[in-house]
Amino acid sequence: MFDDNKQALPISGNAIVGQSGGPTAAINATLSGVIKGLRKCENIKRVYGMKNGIEGLINGNVVDLASAVTTEEDYYALECTPAAALGSCRKKLPSDLNDPIYPKIFEIFRQYDIRYVLYIGGNDSMDTASKLSAYAKEANYEIYVMGVPKTIDNDLVVTDHTPGFGSAIKYIATTVEEIARDCSIYAVQAVTIVEIMGRDAGWLAAGAALPRLSGQACADLVYVAETEFDFDEFIEDVKKELEKKPNVVIAVSEGIKTKDGKYVGESEQSGSVDIFGHKYLAGAARVLESCIRAKIGCKCRSIEMSLPQRCAGHCLSKTDIEESVLVGASCAKHVAAGNSGDFAFFIRDNNADGSYSVSVGFCPVSRIANQIKRIPAEYINERGNNVTDELLHYLQPLILGEVQIPMKNGLPVHFTID
Amino acid sequence: MFDDNKQALPISGNAIVGQSGGPTAAINATLSGVIKGLRKCENIKRVYGMKNGIEGLINGNVVDLASAVTTEEDYYALECTPAAALGSCRKKLPSDLNDPIYPKIFEIFRQYDIRYVLYIGGNDSMDTASKLSAYAKEANYEIYVMGVPKTIDNDLVVTDHTPGFGSAIKYIATTVEEIARDCSIYAVQAVTIVEIMGRDAGWLAAGAALPRLSGQACADLVYVAETEFDFDEFIEDVKKELEKKPNVVIAVSEGIKTKDGKYVGESEQSGSVDIFGHKYLAGAARVLESCIRAKIGCKCRSIEMSLPQRCAGHCLSKTDIEESVLVGASCAKHVAAGNSGDFAFFIRDNNADGSYSVSVGFCPVSRIANQIKRIPAEYINERGNNVTDELLHYLQPLILGEVQIPMKNGLPVHFTID
Repeated sequence: MFDDNKQALPISGNAIVGQSGGPTAAINATLSGVIKGLRKCENIKRVYGMKNGIEGLINGNVVDLASAVTTEEDYYALECTPAAALGSCRKKLPSDLNDPIYPKIFEIFRQYDIRYVLYIGGNDSMDTASKLSAYAKEANYEIYVMGVPKTIDNDLVVTDHTPGFGSAIKYIATTVEEIARDCSIYAVQAVTIVEIMGRDAGWLAAGAALPRLSGQACADLVYVAETEFDFDEFIEDVKKELEKKPNVVIAVSEGIKTKDGKYVGESEQSGSVDIFGHKYLAGAARVLESCIRAKIGCKCRSIEMSLPQRCAGHCLSKTDIEESVLVGASCAKHVAAGNSGDFAFFIRDNNADGSYSVSVGFCPVSRIANQIKRIPAEYINERGNNVTDELLHYLQPLILGEVQIPMKNGLPVHFTID
Repeated sequence: MFDDNKQALPISGNAIVGQSGGPTAAINATLSGVIKGLRKCENIKRVYGMKNGIEGLINGNVVDLASAVTTEEDYYALECTPAAALGSCRKKLPSDLNDPIYPKIFEIFRQYDIRYVLYIGGNDSMDTASKLSAYAKEANYEIYVMGVPKTIDNDLVVTDHTPGFGSAIKYIATTVEEIARDCSIYAVQAVTIVEIMGRDAGWLAAGAALPRLSGQACADLVYVAETEFDFDEFIEDVKKELEKKPNVVIAVSEGIKTKDGKYVGESEQSGSVDIFGHKYLAGAARVLESCIRAKIGCKCRSIEMSLPQRCAGHCLSKTDIEESVLVGASCAKHVAAGNSGDFAFFIRDNNADGSYSVSVGFCPVSRIANQIKRIPAEYINERGNNVTDELLHYLQPLILGEVQIPMKNGLPVHFTID
């Protein structure tokens, strides 16, 4: 019987997958989904990995994944391993498509007969995918490029949320709940300030309020990057909290700014920037700690949550890991069907029974590159010192479920690709 | 039939339990063991808790635990809850037993007909137990006092290790393994310095090397508080590691000191001391970060592990929690049998098959109060920049096993006593 829907498969060839940008606890789950998905596609022969993203590729650092990831146990261990198993980079490709870097990259694609490229990354990495796709259209070489989302920051537009974000806020909420419990045991007045990642958006800091929904200890005040930070109001807020109980816990985004647009973090003064032109930040919490010592005079401690926020593989959200595998597999199928220049995103299903589920949609990667999704104003309270319950209800499904990770001698077993 | 061993039970009356000093992830497991143990003793009528330790007791802050902890689920939830469910304090009792504080405390004991006191704490808390016991002997009031050990620092003498230490190093080892994995993904030269608690002893920092035994990523260099820290040798060590691979992870005790006995941490300069006369420390890792930037010039980041080391209830060692319950229950039985002024400790059993188990022993609390157990020199390598495999083999059994903690809405459920 003739199948009307059967379309000719695009060119048969090899695929390559790369990881880029900051690591997350779920980026390898997406890698697992990509590899698994690609292996189901008839027109994909071999699956390669670029070591250290596009930068490694330019240096010819390519691995054949055929022997690296083989069994179901391999896939599972990879899904439970934080950070980027293929390594990462922070390289930004030039805007000028006439730059000699592009023929160099495509020469390597030719060398390995690469016809499908999947690039897993955040905002800056989507820019890379977008440029590769644009250059491919100009070059006389049939290739399909796909941007696969990951970022703990949850700041990509179009998508309901980003893979990796759920595990990050599960860890942040859990840790802030524990810190609040720890701080509650003394009768002496004390303020604890927890600094959470988030340069431009406060999604991660909002996670510090999540235990509130379950009646657990959590941050009493939450200052997200979206609000205009005012030192006088801050001191008023803290004093008010100290009237209620001796121990106050405060969560702040690293990127909180005052009315004049200046970062509260001290190191803004140094003027140093990272490779993407972002200002290098450190110490919003330290500045506020000094402020409280000076203006209130009580005991004060600041805690920078630092790297564990993005690599705490021992505290994964099952929902996040499952979705991260799903988006990887969906992208594999999508690119192998001959789509190029696209980006995958989550749509939150509108289920009649109110239950939570997501579907995967696709749009041109150029629609999302170099844009930032911030917390909408209605999710922040009027005073600007906390997030609303509505936001927490929106976040809660993303942290549900725990993952039993492989353990040996009392410690996690991480999967490596050499 | 007549039982030769049957002795008359000591006085019938009530018991009180308190928690003191810094919190741990296992101190409530010990509390659970104490309550459970006391309830099995015929001569104990009621079990009370002092809120905020001896300081709360002096203020009459006493709770009846009869209705607070009742079911098996209560015990289990309590065992899985970090920090001190009864609250804590850092009060040191005066050395002069003629101080009016002592009759005040014993007046409250009389008021509640307290005949048995169990005080769960670390080094400084054992001093409190010792003094209460000494005063009890002078006062015309029959009372039995017991010191129940807890401290993440593992710096109590006599005992093989301390309850709470196993969970702390399980968390530290897990987190450093994840940080090392995170740092390994970039090809750019970078040094990451992780500062770990430990003012006088480096047991906790040693935990950062534990993943090495399982072939996992971990700290490449470990500087414990016991070694004489030398800045020049440190820079040499780091340079040597950077020749092997681009990313170097270093663990340091907060209390590392140079040859002249000065803390590497900056704030020693401020001369501020805590209530126990300890120097207030912060920033050994920050000082080393600046040192590396200046002397090597590569990217460098410092991470202070801070409070989560002592309150990460989501990453408990099953061995530690079981032992913590055991020591609590053993102390209850011991004090109810009429012993006073004692401290419980672990003896590592010398099993013929090499398997790991502990027994609980008892000795006078005065033998351990105000002393510090440091890492023996033979457990530190010659260069003083790492710990030996022998030490890691000694530590490994303490982190074995995971605890499935009660979860709700994706977050831990903590038990509270109001």
